[in-house]
Amino acid sequence: MKYFSKADIEKENRIKRLNIINAISGIKPGNLIGTKSKKNGSNLAVFSSVVHLGSSPALLGFILRPTGNVLRNTYSNILETGKYTINHIHISMIEKAHYTSAKFDESISEFKMCGLTESYLHSFEAPFVEESVIKMGMNYIDTIPIPVNGTKMVIGEIQHLILPNESISEEGYVDLSLSNSIGVGGLNNYYELNKTVEFPFARPSNIPDFN
Amino acid sequence: MKYFSKADIEKENRIKRLNIINAISGIKPGNLIGTKSKKNGSNLAVFSSVVHLGSSPALLGFILRPTGNVLRNTYSNILETGKYTINHIHISMIEKAHYTSAKFDESISEFKMCGLTESYLHSFEAPFVEESVIKMGMNYIDTIPIPVNGTKMVIGEIQHLILPNESISEEGYVDLSLSNSIGVGGLNNYYELNKTVEFPFARPSNIPDFN
Repeated sequence: MKYFSKADIEKENRIKRLNIINAISGIKPGNLIGTKSKKNGSNLAVFSSVVHLGSSPALLGFILRPTGNVLRNTYSNILETGKYTINHIHISMIEKAHYTSAKFDESISEFKMCGLTESYLHSFEAPFVEESVIKMGMNYIDTIPIPVNGTKMVIGEIQHLILPNESISEEGYVDLSLSNSIGVGGLNNYYELNKTVEFPFARPSNIPDFN
Repeated sequence: MKYFSKADIEKENRIKRLNIINAISGIKPGNLIGTKSKKNGSNLAVFSSVVHLGSSPALLGFILRPTGNVLRNTYSNILETGKYTINHIHISMIEKAHYTSAKFDESISEFKMCGLTESYLHSFEAPFVEESVIKMGMNYIDTIPIPVNGTKMVIGEIQHLILPNESISEEGYVDLSLSNSIGVGGLNNYYELNKTVEFPFARPSNIPDFN
Protein backbone atom coordinates (compact mmCIF):
# COMPACT_ATOMS: atom_id res chain seq x y z
CA MET A 1 0.00 0.00 0.00
CA LYS A 2 1.00 3.59 -0.55
CA TYR A 3 0.76 5.94 2.44
CA PHE A 4 0.71 9.75 2.58
CA SER A 5 0.62 11.69 5.84
CA LYS A 6 -0.59 15.29 5.91
CA ALA A 7 3.08 16.33 5.73
CA ASP A 8 3.73 14.02 2.74
CA ILE A 9 0.76 15.57 0.92
CA GLU A 10 1.99 19.09 1.65
CA LYS A 11 5.48 18.42 0.32
CA GLU A 12 4.36 16.78 -2.95
CA ASN A 13 4.74 18.96 -6.04
CA ARG A 14 1.64 21.02 -6.76
CA ILE A 15 0.42 19.18 -9.88
CA LYS A 16 0.75 15.73 -8.36
CA ARG A 17 -1.01 16.92 -5.19
CA LEU A 18 -3.85 18.39 -7.29
CA ASN A 19 -4.21 15.08 -9.17
CA ILE A 20 -4.26 12.95 -6.03
CA ILE A 21 -6.53 15.05 -3.83
CA ASN A 22 -9.01 15.81 -6.62
CA ALA A 23 -9.37 12.06 -7.23
CA ILE A 24 -9.41 10.62 -3.75
CA SER A 25 -12.98 11.50 -2.75
CA GLY A 26 -14.13 8.91 -5.32
CA ILE A 27 -16.14 9.20 -8.49
CA LYS A 28 -17.67 12.63 -9.23
CA PRO A 29 -20.63 13.63 -11.38
CA GLY A 30 -19.77 15.27 -14.71
CA ASN A 31 -21.97 18.27 -15.48
CA LEU A 32 -21.89 21.34 -17.69
CA ILE A 33 -23.23 24.56 -16.20
CA GLY A 34 -24.73 26.94 -18.76
CA THR A 35 -25.25 30.66 -18.14
CA LYS A 36 -25.78 33.85 -20.11
CA SER A 37 -24.93 37.48 -19.49
CA LYS A 38 -26.37 40.50 -21.28
CA LYS A 39 -22.90 41.81 -22.09
CA ASN A 40 -20.81 38.73 -22.85
CA GLY A 41 -23.28 36.20 -24.19
CA SER A 42 -23.37 32.56 -23.18
CA ASN A 43 -20.93 30.61 -21.04
CA LEU A 44 -20.49 26.88 -20.47
CA ALA A 45 -18.20 25.28 -17.91
CA VAL A 46 -17.56 21.75 -16.65
CA PHE A 47 -18.13 21.11 -12.94
CA SER A 48 -17.55 17.87 -11.02
CA SER A 49 -18.78 19.14 -7.66
CA VAL A 50 -22.57 19.17 -8.05
CA VAL A 51 -24.04 17.74 -4.85
CA HIS A 52 -27.56 16.84 -3.71
CA LEU A 53 -28.77 19.00 -0.81
CA GLY A 54 -32.43 18.06 -0.49
CA SER A 55 -35.52 16.89 -2.35
CA SER A 56 -38.27 19.11 -0.93
CA PRO A 57 -37.49 21.72 -2.10
CA ALA A 58 -35.30 20.12 -4.80
CA LEU A 59 -31.90 21.73 -4.14
CA LEU A 60 -28.47 21.14 -5.66
CA GLY A 61 -25.20 22.82 -4.73
CA PHE A 62 -21.84 23.15 -6.46
CA ILE A 63 -18.45 24.35 -5.28
CA LEU A 64 -16.89 27.48 -6.71
CA ARG A 65 -13.10 27.85 -6.58
CA PRO A 66 -11.77 31.23 -5.46
CA THR A 67 -9.97 31.83 -8.80
CA GLY A 68 -10.34 31.07 -12.51
CA ASN A 69 -11.91 33.05 -15.32
CA VAL A 70 -14.36 30.40 -16.41
CA LEU A 71 -15.72 29.96 -12.92
CA ARG A 72 -16.00 33.67 -12.36
CA ASN A 73 -17.98 34.07 -15.59
CA THR A 74 -20.35 31.32 -14.52
CA TYR A 75 -20.87 32.88 -11.12
CA SER A 76 -21.20 36.48 -12.24
CA ASN A 77 -23.76 35.40 -14.85
CA ILE A 78 -25.72 33.51 -12.18
CA LEU A 79 -25.74 36.57 -9.94
CA GLU A 80 -26.78 38.79 -12.87
CA THR A 81 -29.67 36.64 -14.10
CA GLY A 82 -30.56 34.35 -11.17
CA LYS A 83 -30.68 31.41 -13.61
CA TYR A 84 -28.39 28.61 -14.77
CA THR A 85 -28.64 25.13 -16.27
CA ILE A 86 -27.03 21.86 -15.17
CA ASN A 87 -26.54 19.44 -18.06
CA HIS A 88 -25.19 15.88 -17.77
CA ILE A 89 -22.07 14.98 -19.70
CA HIS A 90 -22.63 11.81 -21.73
CA ILE A 91 -20.13 9.38 -23.27
CA SER A 92 -20.47 10.89 -26.76
CA MET A 93 -19.50 14.40 -25.61
CA ILE A 94 -16.73 13.88 -23.02
CA GLU A 95 -13.99 15.51 -25.08
CA LYS A 96 -16.08 18.57 -25.98
CA ALA A 97 -17.17 18.96 -22.36
CA HIS A 98 -13.61 18.63 -21.07
CA TYR A 99 -12.33 21.50 -23.20
CA THR A 100 -14.93 23.95 -21.87
CA SER A 101 -12.50 24.26 -18.93
CA ALA A 102 -9.91 26.09 -21.10
CA LYS A 103 -9.64 29.74 -20.13
CA PHE A 104 -11.10 31.38 -23.18
CA ASP A 105 -11.47 35.12 -23.54
CA GLU A 106 -14.68 36.40 -21.93
CA SER A 107 -16.22 37.32 -25.27
CA ILE A 108 -15.87 33.75 -26.63
CA SER A 109 -18.66 31.25 -26.00
CA GLU A 110 -17.52 27.78 -24.94
CA PHE A 111 -20.58 26.44 -26.74
CA LYS A 112 -19.15 27.59 -30.06
CA MET A 113 -15.51 26.73 -29.31
CA CYS A 114 -16.33 23.22 -28.11
CA GLY A 115 -18.95 22.29 -30.72
CA LEU A 116 -21.91 22.11 -28.34
CA THR A 117 -25.33 23.55 -29.14
CA GLU A 118 -27.08 26.26 -27.15
CA SER A 119 -30.74 25.50 -26.68
CA TYR A 120 -33.53 27.52 -25.06
CA LEU A 121 -36.47 25.66 -23.52
CA HIS A 122 -39.57 26.53 -21.49
CA SER A 123 -38.85 30.29 -21.85
CA PHE A 124 -35.93 29.80 -19.47
CA GLU A 125 -33.26 32.53 -19.68
CA ALA A 126 -30.16 30.33 -19.32
CA PRO A 127 -28.90 28.12 -22.17
CA PHE A 128 -29.30 24.34 -22.06
CA VAL A 129 -26.91 21.98 -23.85
CA GLU A 130 -28.89 20.37 -26.67
CA GLU A 131 -26.61 17.30 -26.71
CA SER A 132 -27.33 16.53 -23.03
CA VAL A 133 -30.32 14.23 -22.55
CA ILE A 134 -30.58 14.89 -18.79
CA LYS A 135 -30.74 18.60 -17.97
CA MET A 136 -32.11 20.99 -15.42
CA GLY A 137 -33.02 24.68 -15.32
CA MET A 138 -31.99 26.10 -11.94
CA ASN A 139 -33.17 29.11 -9.95
CA TYR A 140 -30.32 30.60 -7.94
CA ILE A 141 -31.06 30.54 -4.20
CA ASP A 142 -27.98 31.31 -2.09
CA THR A 143 -24.19 31.40 -1.82
CA ILE A 144 -22.56 29.89 1.26
CA PRO A 145 -19.00 31.08 1.92
CA ILE A 146 -16.54 28.38 3.06
CA PRO A 147 -14.06 30.45 5.05
CA VAL A 148 -11.31 27.83 5.56
CA ASN A 149 -10.14 28.04 1.93
CA GLY A 150 -12.16 30.80 0.29
CA THR A 151 -14.37 28.51 -1.80
CA LYS A 152 -18.14 28.98 -1.97
CA MET A 153 -21.13 26.69 -2.32
CA VAL A 154 -23.66 27.96 -4.85
CA ILE A 155 -27.18 26.65 -4.24
CA GLY A 156 -30.09 26.47 -6.66
CA GLU A 157 -33.56 24.94 -6.88
CA ILE A 158 -34.68 22.79 -9.80
CA GLN A 159 -37.22 24.73 -11.90
CA HIS A 160 -37.22 22.46 -14.97
CA LEU A 161 -36.10 18.82 -15.24
CA ILE A 162 -35.83 17.00 -18.56
CA LEU A 163 -34.77 13.38 -18.99
CA PRO A 164 -35.40 10.48 -21.39
CA ASN A 165 -38.52 8.37 -20.77
CA GLU A 166 -36.44 5.20 -20.71
CA SER A 167 -34.07 6.55 -18.01
CA ILE A 168 -36.71 6.74 -15.30
CA SER A 169 -38.76 3.92 -13.79
CA GLU A 170 -42.26 4.05 -12.28
CA GLU A 171 -40.70 4.35 -8.78
CA GLY A 172 -38.53 7.28 -9.89
CA TYR A 173 -35.26 5.34 -10.15
CA VAL A 174 -33.00 7.04 -12.70
CA ASP A 175 -30.63 4.67 -14.53
CA LEU A 176 -27.48 6.66 -15.29
CA SER A 177 -26.04 3.92 -17.50
CA LEU A 178 -29.08 4.01 -19.82
CA SER A 179 -28.49 7.75 -20.37
CA ASN A 180 -24.74 7.13 -20.89
CA SER A 181 -24.02 9.69 -18.16
CA ILE A 182 -20.34 9.63 -17.15
CA GLY A 183 -18.28 10.04 -13.99
CA VAL A 184 -15.17 12.16 -13.47
CA GLY A 185 -12.05 11.06 -11.61
CA GLY A 186 -9.64 13.75 -10.48
CA LEU A 187 -9.19 16.57 -12.99
CA ASN A 188 -9.18 14.75 -16.31
CA ASN A 189 -10.15 11.07 -16.07
CA TYR A 190 -13.55 9.91 -17.29
CA TYR A 191 -15.47 6.76 -16.46
CA GLU A 192 -18.39 4.89 -17.97
CA LEU A 193 -21.02 3.69 -15.51
CA ASN A 194 -22.46 0.17 -15.40
CA LYS A 195 -25.36 -0.32 -13.05
CA THR A 196 -24.70 -3.51 -11.15
CA VAL A 197 -27.14 -3.80 -8.28
CA GLU A 198 -29.88 -2.12 -6.29
CA PHE A 199 -31.03 -2.81 -2.74
CA PRO A 200 -34.22 -1.96 -0.83
CA PHE A 201 -34.29 0.83 1.73
CA ALA A 202 -32.20 -0.48 4.65
CA ARG A 203 -33.98 -1.24 7.93
CA PRO A 204 -32.76 -3.24 10.93
CA SER A 205 -35.58 -5.69 10.13
CA ASN A 206 -34.43 -6.48 6.57
CA ILE A 207 -30.67 -6.63 7.04
CA PRO A 208 -29.09 -9.89 5.80
CA ASP A 209 -27.08 -11.96 8.29
CA PHE A 210 -23.51 -10.91 7.47
CA ASN A 211 -21.85 -12.72 10.38
CA MET B 1 -38.58 13.04 -23.20
CA LYS B 2 -40.04 13.26 -19.72
CA TYR B 3 -40.50 16.75 -18.26
CA PHE B 4 -41.04 17.88 -14.67
CA SER B 5 -41.62 21.49 -13.70
CA LYS B 6 -40.97 22.67 -10.13
CA ALA B 7 -44.71 22.23 -9.51
CA ASP B 8 -44.67 18.68 -10.96
CA ILE B 9 -41.78 17.76 -8.65
CA GLU B 10 -43.59 19.18 -5.63
CA LYS B 11 -46.77 17.22 -6.30
CA GLU B 12 -45.06 13.84 -6.84
CA ASN B 13 -45.40 11.39 -3.95
CA ARG B 14 -42.57 11.69 -1.43
CA ILE B 15 -40.75 8.42 -2.19
CA LYS B 16 -40.71 8.94 -5.95
CA ARG B 17 -39.54 12.54 -5.48
CA LEU B 18 -36.73 11.34 -3.18
CA ASN B 19 -35.67 8.76 -5.78
CA ILE B 20 -35.66 11.22 -8.68
CA ILE B 21 -34.00 14.19 -7.01
CA ASN B 22 -31.36 12.10 -5.25
CA ALA B 23 -30.37 10.62 -8.62
CA ILE B 24 -30.52 13.58 -10.93
CA SER B 25 -27.25 15.30 -9.96
CA GLY B 26 -25.45 12.35 -11.61
CA ILE B 27 -23.15 9.68 -10.21
CA LYS B 28 -22.07 10.09 -6.59
CA PRO B 29 -19.08 8.73 -4.69
CA GLY B 30 -19.79 5.83 -2.31
CA ASN B 31 -17.99 6.20 1.00
CA LEU B 32 -18.28 4.86 4.53
CA ILE B 33 -17.61 7.31 7.36
CA GLY B 34 -16.19 5.71 10.51
CA THR B 35 -16.31 7.34 13.96
CA LYS B 36 -16.03 6.35 17.59
CA SER B 37 -17.47 7.75 20.81
CA LYS B 38 -16.30 7.01 24.33
CA LYS B 39 -19.81 6.08 25.42
CA ASN B 40 -21.34 4.24 22.44
CA GLY B 41 -18.38 2.66 20.69
CA SER B 42 -17.87 2.72 16.93
CA ASN B 43 -20.21 3.89 14.20
CA LEU B 44 -20.16 3.42 10.44
CA ALA B 45 -22.46 5.12 7.94
CA VAL B 46 -22.71 5.31 4.16
CA PHE B 47 -22.46 8.78 2.58
CA SER B 48 -22.78 9.68 -1.09
CA SER B 49 -22.13 13.41 -0.66
CA VAL B 50 -18.37 13.62 -0.11
CA VAL B 51 -17.08 16.53 -2.18
CA HIS B 52 -13.61 17.93 -2.95
CA LEU B 53 -13.08 21.43 -1.55
CA GLY B 54 -9.39 22.04 -2.11
CA SER B 55 -5.97 20.42 -2.36
CA SER B 56 -3.77 22.76 -0.32
CA PRO B 57 -4.79 22.20 2.40
CA ALA B 58 -6.39 18.89 1.36
CA LEU B 59 -10.04 19.42 2.32
CA LEU B 60 -13.15 17.30 1.78
CA GLY B 61 -16.71 18.13 2.78
CA PHE B 62 -19.86 16.07 3.17
CA ILE B 63 -23.51 16.98 3.62
CA LEU B 64 -25.35 16.16 6.83
CA ARG B 65 -29.13 15.83 6.73
CA PRO B 66 -31.07 17.58 9.50
CA THR B 67 -32.53 14.28 10.80
CA GLY B 68 -31.64 10.60 11.14
CA ASN B 69 -30.07 8.64 13.98
CA VAL B 70 -27.16 7.27 12.00
CA LEU B 71 -26.14 10.68 10.78
CA ARG B 72 -26.48 12.22 14.20
CA ASN B 73 -24.23 9.53 15.68
CA THR B 74 -21.64 10.21 13.04
CA TYR B 75 -21.72 13.95 13.65
CA SER B 76 -21.82 13.84 17.45
CA ASN B 77 -18.85 11.46 17.40
CA ILE B 78 -16.94 13.80 15.08
CA LEU B 79 -17.63 16.74 17.39
CA GLU B 80 -16.61 14.67 20.44
CA THR B 81 -13.31 13.38 19.04
CA GLY B 82 -12.43 15.71 16.17
CA LYS B 83 -11.60 12.65 14.03
CA TYR B 84 -13.31 10.48 11.42
CA THR B 85 -12.38 8.20 8.54
CA ILE B 86 -13.58 8.17 4.92
CA ASN B 87 -13.38 4.71 3.34
CA HIS B 88 -14.20 3.89 -0.29
CA ILE B 89 -16.92 1.35 -0.97
CA HIS B 90 -15.65 -1.32 -3.37
CA ILE B 91 -17.57 -3.79 -5.55
CA SER B 92 -17.06 -6.68 -3.12
CA MET B 93 -18.68 -4.84 -0.20
CA ILE B 94 -21.61 -2.91 -1.71
CA GLU B 95 -24.32 -4.87 0.10
CA LYS B 96 -22.62 -4.63 3.51
CA ALA B 97 -22.02 -0.90 3.01
CA HIS B 98 -25.63 -0.30 1.95
CA TYR B 99 -27.06 -1.78 5.12
CA THR B 100 -25.02 0.49 7.40
CA SER B 101 -27.78 3.02 6.61
CA ALA B 102 -30.35 1.03 8.65
CA LYS B 103 -31.26 2.85 11.85
CA PHE B 104 -29.74 0.54 14.43
CA ASP B 105 -29.91 1.21 18.15
CA GLU B 106 -27.13 3.58 19.27
CA SER B 107 -25.37 0.86 21.25
CA ILE B 108 -25.02 -1.40 18.18
CA SER B 109 -21.97 -1.01 15.92
CA GLU B 110 -22.70 -1.07 12.19
CA PHE B 111 -19.27 -2.67 11.74
CA LYS B 112 -20.48 -5.77 13.59
CA MET B 113 -24.01 -5.81 12.15
CA CYS B 114 -22.82 -5.44 8.56
CA GLY B 115 -19.82 -7.77 8.69
CA LEU B 116 -17.16 -5.11 8.19
CA THR B 117 -13.92 -5.00 10.16
CA GLU B 118 -12.83 -2.11 12.41
CA SER B 119 -9.15 -1.33 11.98
CA TYR B 120 -6.91 1.17 13.77
CA LEU B 121 -3.92 2.60 11.92
CA HIS B 122 -1.24 5.23 12.55
CA SER B 123 -2.46 5.74 16.15
CA PHE B 124 -5.55 7.45 14.71
CA GLU B 125 -8.54 7.54 17.06
CA ALA B 126 -11.30 6.86 14.50
CA PRO B 127 -11.89 3.38 13.03
CA PHE B 128 -10.95 2.58 9.43
CA VAL B 129 -12.74 -0.10 7.40
CA GLU B 130 -10.23 -2.90 6.87
CA GLU B 131 -12.00 -4.08 3.69
CA SER B 132 -11.61 -0.66 2.03
CA VAL B 133 -8.39 -0.33 0.04
CA ILE B 134 -8.65 3.48 -0.34
CA LYS B 135 -9.15 5.22 3.01
CA MET B 136 -8.44 8.48 4.74
CA GLY B 137 -8.11 9.65 8.34
CA MET B 138 -9.71 13.09 8.65
CA ASN B 139 -9.24 15.94 11.12
CA TYR B 140 -12.49 17.81 11.66
CA ILE B 141 -12.17 21.49 10.65
CA ASP B 142 -15.55 23.23 10.47
CA THR B 143 -19.31 22.94 10.05
CA ILE B 144 -21.05 25.26 7.58
CA PRO B 145 -24.81 25.66 8.13
CA ILE B 146 -26.94 25.69 4.97
CA PRO B 147 -29.91 27.76 6.11
CA VAL B 148 -32.25 27.15 3.15
CA ASN B 149 -33.04 23.57 4.22
CA GLY B 150 -31.28 23.01 7.54
CA THR B 151 -28.53 20.76 6.17
CA LYS B 152 -24.89 21.29 7.09
CA MET B 153 -21.57 20.82 5.34
CA VAL B 154 -18.98 19.10 7.54
CA ILE B 155 -15.40 19.87 6.52
CA GLY B 156 -12.24 17.95 7.34
CA GLU B 157 -8.57 17.86 6.35
CA ILE B 158 -6.82 14.69 5.22
CA GLN B 159 -4.38 13.58 7.93
CA HIS B 160 -3.70 10.06 6.60
CA LEU B 161 -4.21 8.71 3.08
CA ILE B 162 -3.84 5.02 2.21
CA LEU B 163 -4.28 3.53 -1.25
CA PRO B 164 -2.97 0.58 -3.29
CA ASN B 165 0.35 1.10 -5.12
CA GLU B 166 -1.22 0.03 -8.40
CA SER B 167 -4.06 2.60 -8.11
CA ILE B 168 -1.79 5.64 -8.37
CA SER B 169 0.46 6.67 -11.25
CA GLU B 170 3.70 8.65 -11.14
CA GLU B 171 1.72 11.84 -11.97
CA GLY B 172 -0.71 11.21 -9.13
CA TYR B 173 -3.61 9.97 -11.29
CA VAL B 174 -5.79 7.64 -9.24
CA ASP B 175 -7.56 4.92 -11.26
CA LEU B 176 -10.85 4.24 -9.49
CA SER B 177 -11.61 1.21 -11.68
CA LEU B 178 -8.37 -0.54 -10.60
CA SER B 179 -9.44 -0.19 -6.96
CA ASN B 180 -12.98 -1.39 -7.83
CA SER B 181 -14.39 1.75 -6.22
CA ILE B 182 -18.10 2.14 -6.98
CA GLY B 183 -20.54 4.95 -7.67
CA VAL B 184 -23.96 5.54 -6.15
CA GLY B 185 -27.09 6.58 -8.05
CA GLY B 186 -29.98 7.96 -6.06
CA LEU B 187 -30.57 6.24 -2.74
CA ASN B 188 -29.93 2.59 -3.57
CA ASN B 189 -28.45 2.03 -7.04
CA TYR B 190 -24.81 1.07 -7.43
CA TYR B 191 -22.53 1.35 -10.45
CA GLU B 192 -19.20 -0.14 -11.48
CA LEU B 193 -16.72 2.30 -13.00
CA ASN B 194 -14.80 1.72 -16.21
CA LYS B 195 -12.14 4.26 -17.01
CA THR B 196 -12.54 5.17 -20.65
CA VAL B 197 -10.44 8.21 -21.45
CA GLU B 198 -8.20 10.93 -20.07
CA PHE B 199 -7.39 14.32 -21.56
CA PRO B 200 -4.60 16.83 -20.92
CA PHE B 201 -5.23 20.02 -18.95
CA ALA B 202 -7.43 22.15 -21.22
CA ARG B 203 -5.94 25.35 -22.67
CA PRO B 204 -7.17 27.52 -25.54
CA SER B 205 -3.94 26.53 -27.34
CA ASN B 206 -4.55 22.76 -27.24
CA ILE B 207 -8.27 22.64 -27.94
CA PRO B 208 -9.22 20.36 -30.88
CA ASP B 209 -11.16 21.91 -33.78
CA PHE B 210 -14.74 20.88 -32.95
CA ASN B 211 -16.42 22.96 -35.65
